[in-house]
Amino acid sequence: MNDFSEEEKESLYKAIYSRRDVRSNFTSEPIDEQILMRILKAGHHAPSVGFSQPWNFILIKNTETRKKIKESFEKEKTRSSKLVEEPRRSKYLSYKLEGILESAINLCVTYDPTKTGSFVIGRSSIPATGVFSVCCAVEGIGVGWVSILSNETLRDTLHIPDHVVPVAYLCLGHVSKFETKPDLETSGWLPRLKVDEVIYHEKWLQGKELKATVQ
Amino acid sequence: MNDFSEEEKESLYKAIYSRRDVRSNFTSEPIDEQILMRILKAGHHAPSVGFSQPWNFILIKNTETRKKIKESFEKEKTRSSKLVEEPRRSKYLSYKLEGILESAINLCVTYDPTKTGSFVIGRSSIPATGVFSVCCAVEGIGVGWVSILSNETLRDTLHIPDHVVPVAYLCLGHVSKFETKPDLETSGWLPRLKVDEVIYHEKWLQGKELKATVQ
Repeated sequence: MNDFSEEEKESLYKAIYSRRDVRSNFTSEPIDEQILMRILKAGHHAPSVGFSQPWNFILIKNTETRKKIKESFEKEKTRSSKLVEEPRRSKYLSYKLEGILESAINLCVTYDPTKTGSFVIGRSSIPATGVFSVCCAVEGIGVGWVSILSNETLRDTLHIPDHVVPVAYLCLGHVSKFETKPDLETSGWLPRLKVDEVIYHEKWLQGKELKATVQ
Repeated sequence: MNDFSEEEKESLYKAIYSRRDVRSNFTSEPIDEQILMRILKAGHHAPSVGFSQPWNFILIKNTETRKKIKESFEKEKTRSSKLVEEPRRSKYLSYKLEGILESAINLCVTYDPTKTGSFVIGRSSIPATGVFSVCCAVEGIGVGWVSILSNETLRDTLHIPDHVVPVAYLCLGHVSKFETKPDLETSGWLPRLKVDEVIYHEKWLQGKELKATVQ
């Protein structure tokens, strides 16, 4: 099973590099139920600490619910814009940062530390979102992660209990086009870091001497 | 770019389903530097909130460092075993849960919320670990996530500053064989949940009526 041809390897890397977060260009075409289940099933097969599979996936189509989430987004966006100075503030406010209402479906990924009993082998993190992201790419589905939201609103609106953490709020749908670069790179908000800038050797901050041949 | 053939899609799903966390069977064969860089670069291309790329990757080969980390593991394992009753305690203690010393290289993934300035668009999470995991699979590299560790020991040993969070501690290396199922599933510690058990519709706990055709 763990024997991959060069073509298979290339397919994976192609998916990883063409994967893009999407906020614009959502079309009204619904997502085929089988494709959606393939994506969810793949995310569910992501690694989890102690095989705890601590996630739940809440699928949201209801317009009223989405409007409440969108209101929270608008409020948080305005609030957070005050934390950044001009000229970046206007730039930030001008960006389209979500597709809550236009996308085919919204998906809230949650983390429940008590899911499989009180004793879990090890601490937890949620790599499922990385897997979703790559699967959406190969399925031709756009996915946009909305992070400017209040967890309180998510809890209230989706009836998520206090001990459960909303980890990601994703908007999924077909799009009229995929960008080749992240929107925030294209707009000059932040540059792509070179991979050797994020690698340290043996200790924090150590090993900037590494000459990475890739970027 | 976002046009994938059936073969390419299948390659990705093959990688996701054959991906396994590895704790045993590490061989002494070193990881080719180019393969390691391909994996790190792919992880670096995971999505990040506000394009903040908040991760760093600390590569650890030094044996003294690894011995300190392993000591922390042993201590935490003993400590946490007291939280679980017999007969599960003995079962837990009998499991091999890490390959810190035997693997070719250790990798600590960190999250630095201040990385790209104090104003980040949105909150953060680290999907990079999910991407690593799939890349290791296609490269024939075993990866084992060690989560029974004290963050304090990781900070002390790797000189990680207080504002940075160690997210994952991974052991990477070639292995003599890959298992087809998660070790903790094989040993009967926990079952694989069915995907429809983790899906809710519109609200938390809602929609158990969905008949999922996949598992």
